[in-house]
Amino acid sequence: MRTAIATVCLSGSLTEKLTAAARAGFDGVEIFENDLLASPLTPEEIRARCADLGLTIDLYQPMRDLEALPEDEFARALRRARHKFELMRRLGADTVLVCSSVHPLAVDDDALAAEQLARLAGLAHEHGIRVAYEALAWGRHVSTYDHAWRIVEAADHPALGTCLDSFHILSRGSDPKGIEDIPGEKIFFLQLADAPRLAMDVLQWSRHYRCFPGQGGFDVAGLVRHVLATGYTGPLSLEVFNDVFRQADPGPTAVDGRRSLLVLQEQTGAATPPEPVVPTGIAFAELVTPDPAPLAAVLGALGFTRTARHRGKPVDLWEQGDARILVNTGPAARRDGTRLAAIGLQSPDPAGAARRAEALLAPVLPRRRAPEDAPLDAVAAPDGTELFFCGGRTPRQPDWRADFTDLAPSAPDTGTGRIDHLALTQPWHHFDEAALFHRAVLGLNAQESVDLADPYGLLRSRAVANADGSVRLALTVGAAPGDATVHARHIALACDDVVAAARRFRAAGGRLLPVPANYHDDLAARFDLPEEELAAYRELGILYDRDPDGGEFRHCYTRTTGHVFFELVQRDGGYQGYGAANAPVRLAAQHTAGDLTGG
Amino acid sequence: MRTAIATVCLSGSLTEKLTAAARAGFDGVEIFENDLLASPLTPEEIRARCADLGLTIDLYQPMRDLEALPEDEFARALRRARHKFELMRRLGADTVLVCSSVHPLAVDDDALAAEQLARLAGLAHEHGIRVAYEALAWGRHVSTYDHAWRIVEAADHPALGTCLDSFHILSRGSDPKGIEDIPGEKIFFLQLADAPRLAMDVLQWSRHYRCFPGQGGFDVAGLVRHVLATGYTGPLSLEVFNDVFRQADPGPTAVDGRRSLLVLQEQTGAATPPEPVVPTGIAFAELVTPDPAPLAAVLGALGFTRTARHRGKPVDLWEQGDARILVNTGPAARRDGTRLAAIGLQSPDPAGAARRAEALLAPVLPRRRAPEDAPLDAVAAPDGTELFFCGGRTPRQPDWRADFTDLAPSAPDTGTGRIDHLALTQPWHHFDEAALFHRAVLGLNAQESVDLADPYGLLRSRAVANADGSVRLALTVGAAPGDATVHARHIALACDDVVAAARRFRAAGGRLLPVPANYHDDLAARFDLPEEELAAYRELGILYDRDPDGGEFRHCYTRTTGHVFFELVQRDGGYQGYGAANAPVRLAAQHTAGDLTGG
Repeated sequence: MRTAIATVCLSGSLTEKLTAAARAGFDGVEIFENDLLASPLTPEEIRARCADLGLTIDLYQPMRDLEALPEDEFARALRRARHKFELMRRLGADTVLVCSSVHPLAVDDDALAAEQLARLAGLAHEHGIRVAYEALAWGRHVSTYDHAWRIVEAADHPALGTCLDSFHILSRGSDPKGIEDIPGEKIFFLQLADAPRLAMDVLQWSRHYRCFPGQGGFDVAGLVRHVLATGYTGPLSLEVFNDVFRQADPGPTAVDGRRSLLVLQEQTGAATPPEPVVPTGIAFAELVTPDPAPLAAVLGALGFTRTARHRGKPVDLWEQGDARILVNTGPAARRDGTRLAAIGLQSPDPAGAARRAEALLAPVLPRRRAPEDAPLDAVAAPDGTELFFCGGRTPRQPDWRADFTDLAPSAPDTGTGRIDHLALTQPWHHFDEAALFHRAVLGLNAQESVDLADPYGLLRSRAVANADGSVRLALTVGAAPGDATVHARHIALACDDVVAAARRFRAAGGRLLPVPANYHDDLAARFDLPEEELAAYRELGILYDRDPDGGEFRHCYTRTTGHVFFELVQRDGGYQGYGAANAPVRLAAQHTAGDLTGG
Repeated sequence: MRTAIATVCLSGSLTEKLTAAARAGFDGVEIFENDLLASPLTPEEIRARCADLGLTIDLYQPMRDLEALPEDEFARALRRARHKFELMRRLGADTVLVCSSVHPLAVDDDALAAEQLARLAGLAHEHGIRVAYEALAWGRHVSTYDHAWRIVEAADHPALGTCLDSFHILSRGSDPKGIEDIPGEKIFFLQLADAPRLAMDVLQWSRHYRCFPGQGGFDVAGLVRHVLATGYTGPLSLEVFNDVFRQADPGPTAVDGRRSLLVLQEQTGAATPPEPVVPTGIAFAELVTPDPAPLAAVLGALGFTRTARHRGKPVDLWEQGDARILVNTGPAARRDGTRLAAIGLQSPDPAGAARRAEALLAPVLPRRRAPEDAPLDAVAAPDGTELFFCGGRTPRQPDWRADFTDLAPSAPDTGTGRIDHLALTQPWHHFDEAALFHRAVLGLNAQESVDLADPYGLLRSRAVANADGSVRLALTVGAAPGDATVHARHIALACDDVVAAARRFRAAGGRLLPVPANYHDDLAARFDLPEEELAAYRELGILYDRDPDGGEFRHCYTRTTGHVFFELVQRDGGYQGYGAANAPVRLAAQHTAGDLTGG
């Protein structure tokens, strides 16, 4: 099926929007009237620009408040329409959207609405144009898709059809099943948007909080299935009003939108990209650093041993049990300092995983970094993190391991020998995009997003994980662009006994993040914890959480090295979270310690 | 009356919050539990810090989900309470807030709630503590203030009273008149917040969108009058949860909050600051620039004449009719380039206006810049703009004019000889603050705020004006911190005939902002404008708007010099707006022209 995107989804000038849409692989665009009005290009130049970019203009959106009007008002509206049809001829657009009226003089008279829409369609027909009539969720008299369709049916004009919009239909809680009663050839257009489930005024919700399909709470795929069942052959077109998208770089937003349509097409059987290959474990986490000494000290204190060195590159492998961390002192490190830059995902089918990722528009990285290296499939996540798909019979014997020369035997697991999760802070505008990417490309499941109160602003966090929890990624974004808090990322190591692990770390010279005594006083008030246990938590800065089912979470943090720190976590009783309740205290402690600086 | 602020209103560590509250002149604070938990200071150290800063701790906020519980749950809650009362003793806080329960096991049983609250109050009493019970708007069984009061009355314990919160009361639409039925001595605390009128889930509304009294849509002053009528003698305390405040510098936020309470006290008769002195005109606008030549060219083309020079400073006066513009090439210019830095407001009582501003916490600027200068009262607005209060018998003969040596006779009014309005872009987090400042300090009236779609993000704009429209300020803020669009400010000059004025400007070498032809094609479609009029608009880049009552607005823009541009505006038929409908086209045209750059 053809895919399109409304220019209002993207930030920038009309030229920037068209370029971004074409680069992301859309077939067409809806041109939003204000984008055209504000453009210095003539309609003919816009038409030529679209043609050069391989884009069709599938819809023009100038019309509103047209039907069920007093005759003199309708005459004025027809006069406007004539101007717009002439403009569309110059533009080369053949379908116009007409939204149901919010005009104060519009009357509740379906027969009049049908008669006037038929007259409008007659005028449009003379210009070779089709009219697609859509019910706005807040339309004055027409606010549901079935009502709009009844009026179109009554008007009975070949140049008049209906436009369906998933937001307007699903935000009102309408049952989309009835769509199948509409003949496919009378559905002139299909606009798609998702939205988080918010209890708020529908107009505000629509204008500021829409998102791409799969990023919100609506069953957009279910709706599309009903539309496809009618025989609809028009494009799937995104129409999203979102305050964040308005400010974000339009290139990534367009790619994000097209990925959402690819996933939607897969869900509805309209396309069959390569199947997802769900990762089965974390093969490694890769840190880049200009100076390996501080990291080496931390890793050593955590029980890791430097076991091998890459044959061709300045990369060391540190191991402990099943946890593997690469320390890369190559050129990338000099740019951004010490940071978590790449993740190796254990994959039952690395090539298949990479094909899936590529089909869903993840940039593919070169397979071989050097001729002698094992080929390693890799893509870039939206935030720039490199994702390597690692094969091999077992996680302990991956293909990539052969590129390394042994230095020392693999260290025994001293109690922190598994990566529990990786916390990946995201650029400000990439939050919904990141969650969709990890779900769609990697086949991970997303949890609900939560707000975390940092002393200097709210953060939003959302975790994605595979079914058995052997791959868990926590995605966090700041409340506004430029929030320095979110530069630091961390690696959480699973422990059977966090108290013992923290003691060993400290005894080996490691520095733990101090936690205020007030926090532990509060733990004493809230939970009936044994006195000696609480004393150990106080001493080591261990935080505690308990879920409603009695699952328990004990965790503590190391001080930060560059933009990286480590967490030691102990999960008991089926605890599935990440200690979000403790995040404000942890973040404040890191600010106090000076561990969360910009850069 | 005493004033207080909850630490949750302010950004930063507890220490930073306390410092900001004290500097803004608050008498006390409410300490929010998470701020204490996250602080490395012990309760005793916090107590000492507050004492050093002259702050009392008027409320501690740790309690929730306490009443109408099954006995075993209540026993656990009492255990927690005992810990917290002990903490409060260390902290030196004698009142604790208990919010109505949202506990899943809480039952709808007022008698049980009263009995358990009485037991809690008994325990509190042993520690010298009072319990203030408050109805949350989303409480499970108790969600209105009168219901909470009935339970307190039934419990009948001297250490139990009620806490009133303006947000919880007004967001539910409760009638605050009934507050007067509560004995003042049983109102243990009063929390104040305003909020914009949003149709959204009350919990989300409360947690993210509260603002200071006078900044939103609630009649907070009316509520406070009812509370004062009871004989309440406790503090007026601000409790505002706001995503923007969480990120903003706490110093200005605290000042803003205290100003809102001062205005509230005035409105309720609890304080009598000097009366507002409403400005009667714009005496001058002052531009600073490192290089006066480009500005001189623009001003000359606009019909201004350089009429005088300041005796002691590098400041020129340019005049045309009643419009006066100062061009200052002093040291400030070298820092930030060409910008609109100060406004002279014609005032019937400059000293009174300055006293009012100072009483409402505007920083007072030195009255005399040099011994020979006329004394000029001046304050800084929240955005740093200097506001001068100018006296003199008429606007044409102001006091300050005597500091200038004549260079040339005042130019005749060539049709642009009056300042219509000044557009003052605001730092990101100062939007509500700016509107409150201009209303409260200057006695101006605020209009509704509107969203303006810039190609690179939404802007918000709100105008303030005096009754006859002779002083109009348009305040605009970007959608996010760091938005470069909002650096440019502008001066709008009133014209009787904008076409003639624009032609003269262009003939004199001035450069007008080009407006896309598509915009004028749309005007032709929307309005029945005479062909020759439209041709002139196309030629000159004139924009057009019409209000529902037939009022008309014609306006065009000059190109930008540094961070300053000019607008020529023609108002007819009582048009009161600022052409917001045209702002997206204007902003896009400025981006196209490269006129809106950062800096």
